[in-house]
Amino acid sequence: MATVTAAAAGSRELAHPARTEIRLEGVLHALSDPMRMHIVRDLSAAATELACSSFELPVSKSTTTHHFRVLRESGVIRQAYRGTAKMSGLRLDDLEELFPGLLAAVLEAAERQAARD
Amino acid sequence: MATVTAAAAGSRELAHPARTEIRLEGVLHALSDPMRMHIVRDLSAAATELACSSFELPVSKSTTTHHFRVLRESGVIRQAYRGTAKMSGLRLDDLEELFPGLLAAVLEAAERQAARD
Repeated sequence: MATVTAAAAGSRELAHPARTEIRLEGVLHALSDPMRMHIVRDLSAAATELACSSFELPVSKSTTTHHFRVLRESGVIRQAYRGTAKMSGLRLDDLEELFPGLLAAVLEAAERQAARD
Repeated sequence: MATVTAAAAGSRELAHPARTEIRLEGVLHALSDPMRMHIVRDLSAAATELACSSFELPVSKSTTTHHFRVLRESGVIRQAYRGTAKMSGLRLDDLEELFPGLLAAVLEAAERQAARD
């Protein structure tokens, strides 16, 4: 029974790149979509993990899931299940260690563009 | 004859977005490809315009042309014909005005990644 529980828990673990596997081109690609930038800005503003369900994006649920997956697989966010909620948070430490100042510069650029729009 | 010359010159002018048309998502997408990042790093290191023919990329000529077009249409570079040479240069002033520090942060990130590889 313990084994089954462990396996069930294991099947709900989400794949993440290790810090050293995070690639700049993947991070920039992940950030090059307005919906994904929206998610990243919200996570940055919240400064904590947020449930995927707390995002109200003007796209379908499956498209939202896709955007979160691109962010996770590129190393921009970390996702984990907490009970029934799928929580997401920025990988600030990893990104800052790999690419100092990059995320801050991108977020500031996004803010400036939003102010222009 | 003067009119013909002007028309011929006009047909060789390349389309560029105005500064206010440059979008962050387009810039990040343009920078999210390793070949295009290679071009941008070379242009940054040269600190001047370079002829397209001076880049030796491990891809076909038409693929190279495509990468330069993506960089130009996103507003990252400016291209112009000088005689028979097509010259390219970074739009540093426009990018710095729109997104201060962004290109510098991306270039530093690219340098760090290259040092890791």
